[in-house]
Amino acid sequence: MALVTRLGRIVGEHNVFSSREERVCYAYDGTFHFHMPDVVVKPQNAEQIAQILKLANDSNTPVFPRGAGTGLSGGSLPVHGGIAMVLTGMDSILEIDAGNQVAVVEPGVVTGRLHAAVAEQELFYPPDPASLDVCTIGGNIAECAGGPRGVKYGVTRDYVLGLELVTPTGDLIKTGGKTIKNVTGYDLTRLMVGSEGTLGIVTKALLRLIPLPGTIKTVLAVFDDLLQASDAILAVFKSGVIPATMEIMDAEAIKCVVEHAGARLPRDADAVLLIEVDGCPAAVEEEVNAVAEACLQHRARSVETASTPEERNRLWQARRAVSPALVKLKPTKISEDATVPRAQVPAMIRRLQQIREKYDLNLVIFGHAGDGNLHPNIIADERDAGEMARVEQAVGEIFQAALELGGTLSGEHGIGTMKTPYMQAEFGTQGLAYMRRIKKSLDPNNILNPGKIFSE
Amino acid sequence: MALVTRLGRIVGEHNVFSSREERVCYAYDGTFHFHMPDVVVKPQNAEQIAQILKLANDSNTPVFPRGAGTGLSGGSLPVHGGIAMVLTGMDSILEIDAGNQVAVVEPGVVTGRLHAAVAEQELFYPPDPASLDVCTIGGNIAECAGGPRGVKYGVTRDYVLGLELVTPTGDLIKTGGKTIKNVTGYDLTRLMVGSEGTLGIVTKALLRLIPLPGTIKTVLAVFDDLLQASDAILAVFKSGVIPATMEIMDAEAIKCVVEHAGARLPRDADAVLLIEVDGCPAAVEEEVNAVAEACLQHRARSVETASTPEERNRLWQARRAVSPALVKLKPTKISEDATVPRAQVPAMIRRLQQIREKYDLNLVIFGHAGDGNLHPNIIADERDAGEMARVEQAVGEIFQAALELGGTLSGEHGIGTMKTPYMQAEFGTQGLAYMRRIKKSLDPNNILNPGKIFSE
Repeated sequence: MALVTRLGRIVGEHNVFSSREERVCYAYDGTFHFHMPDVVVKPQNAEQIAQILKLANDSNTPVFPRGAGTGLSGGSLPVHGGIAMVLTGMDSILEIDAGNQVAVVEPGVVTGRLHAAVAEQELFYPPDPASLDVCTIGGNIAECAGGPRGVKYGVTRDYVLGLELVTPTGDLIKTGGKTIKNVTGYDLTRLMVGSEGTLGIVTKALLRLIPLPGTIKTVLAVFDDLLQASDAILAVFKSGVIPATMEIMDAEAIKCVVEHAGARLPRDADAVLLIEVDGCPAAVEEEVNAVAEACLQHRARSVETASTPEERNRLWQARRAVSPALVKLKPTKISEDATVPRAQVPAMIRRLQQIREKYDLNLVIFGHAGDGNLHPNIIADERDAGEMARVEQAVGEIFQAALELGGTLSGEHGIGTMKTPYMQAEFGTQGLAYMRRIKKSLDPNNILNPGKIFSE
Repeated sequence: MALVTRLGRIVGEHNVFSSREERVCYAYDGTFHFHMPDVVVKPQNAEQIAQILKLANDSNTPVFPRGAGTGLSGGSLPVHGGIAMVLTGMDSILEIDAGNQVAVVEPGVVTGRLHAAVAEQELFYPPDPASLDVCTIGGNIAECAGGPRGVKYGVTRDYVLGLELVTPTGDLIKTGGKTIKNVTGYDLTRLMVGSEGTLGIVTKALLRLIPLPGTIKTVLAVFDDLLQASDAILAVFKSGVIPATMEIMDAEAIKCVVEHAGARLPRDADAVLLIEVDGCPAAVEEEVNAVAEACLQHRARSVETASTPEERNRLWQARRAVSPALVKLKPTKISEDATVPRAQVPAMIRRLQQIREKYDLNLVIFGHAGDGNLHPNIIADERDAGEMARVEQAVGEIFQAALELGGTLSGEHGIGTMKTPYMQAEFGTQGLAYMRRIKKSLDPNNILNPGKIFSE
């Protein structure tokens, strides 16, 4: 019996898509790559997913789970054809348990929708990837998504308490639970988070919530010297403040938003820091003063503070304009997320500037400076083969610089297909072998999302 | 060549112990069990550990790593003889990197010593197991130790950023790094935390530090009704406060410390809550008022607040006296740590009271109420076979109650040898099989700490 027919018996014919037009919609993600699946299936529950995985093992067909397809590392691309499994149909918020401060959700729930739903009960789910209005919790868990708030609140892994999942061989199992403390057996919950859909498919997630911070204040500090801005970052942390967000933009990023997005920043500035503090009102007042003082002590040209949503929006406008402004320069935007320890941010910025000059590229530096998770973006034109060759060399050097500074290939985008060639440099042969043994033991037929994390 | 000789060539003869007198010292832990190792070895560095594990695989000898032996679940017991590997000799604090707020330590560092060392730089390592003056970071990582501060600050897993470890087959690998954000490959760091020494031996740990809280205040609230105290707990969280610690004592615990430790508490009280808040001074002032108000609204008989170290010590005195006072009743103290979601604490307390009556046992309830991690302690006499049989049945019912209330077998002590029979009830056959496959793939000869987590 044909695969399409057998899938139709599991999920209903209306949830199986096999025409070229339908399959094209699931052949891409947030990268510039394109891989056609042989068939697309939209399961509606965990039992259907288990049956599909059993069928896939029987017929040796690879399965590529996907949420909204916003990933930036190729994690959901169906690189070997096979089955694209779309989880957006499982999008129920099953429970918001205010007493235990836990939300129970299906994988297809859009992150921003969860934010809004829990905020109604004065609760807070901190992870805030830039794509939060579109991306799904399942994808966030698969890639361990981060965002600006990571510096204070941590990332997705810090908010996943338990999971229901289907294993690569089609068993339905549970991990963790609603308790913060849980040391019963191996921590399969955290093993799953960031495993990029290679060790199981999440069908339900128990997410930790915290009280919604009462007050937020924002500081925008403009610097004539990027190194002074870097020193100010460390001074803020030294003062004992943990800011909720701590964003940086370099001179190129500033110039770009001034010229292409009409941002109201001095175009000759060398760096801008955008810092937020949140919490209870009295603490926020003290902390915002400490932040402003740290910036002024490190020769900030100006420091502005905002409290109301309108004022805060105005300060954020320049930072939010970076990505849209960049694509006005050239069509191809390569966004990296190599991450270094916080104190190495100045050194990393210097290395990025050298790489920019060496390869004569539009390389713009901005991102989450508070946790060392910079986003160097290279703006190029993929039709220009010479430029793209320089981009590839530059990207390799960016990874090398991050590793030399004690950092890592990826802070929040994942390895996917894009960074597999560099894994050896970070983990060595034996570290990679340890990871591969886990994959092999749980997915003996290499059915689930092959071609990701490990090079083939 | 004899094993002792071959071990001596690796670590030096003076670090190998084979006499009965020497081996007895490493045959026990914090449980009441006793298992003699065939030989004891004290490696001094990672390279020696790698060689020992290769030798162990070649000669099919089990290896049982251990720190200070304070574990309460049997995790370090050499249940099959073999090699007891004592890691207390590797006890250097290698680096306190204040800029990145990271400490790099060897596994034998005593937790309390790390607390003191980082506090000198105004930094804070929150995990605080009760044995912190004796226990080691390596053991804390193996069992994912918690403590009273878990309710606000999380547990050991939340502070381990990276590891150097020797795999069961003797390879030296690295995981994670100094960055908060890291999604490069599988999260081996968190897989190792809580794996009870069955997947690798930690030789170096990169630990996340946070700023030392500026102010701490303590609230002691006395209740005439345990259920009112339980409601007060939830009211505190609902007010938006996350207390640094939130301890509870039931009527039996109160009576015990009044009678056997001279604690100054009303002996007719039904429950006591001991709550701390910490942070910046202005916020602490607001929060301590919110805590007191929540207690008074739920009919606390009295609420006392303390700010100075001396006053705080006085309020803590009763809570600290529980364990020493209990052993004055009878010699055998069985401390459980089954954990339930916070909102289920009242239901769990009722179940524990029923179990106490049903089996006619000295069962005292105290522990970390804020995170649902109660410590029901049964005080018995192991020479009384009839009583011990009732204890065993009661323990089984405690686990059953926790699971029925959506909780877990262990919040912070681990499974070790003691709870292996109950794993099936929490995970089912397929969940356990998923875990066992990981163990088998990484330790094909079952050399490293066999007999733990999984029943044999």
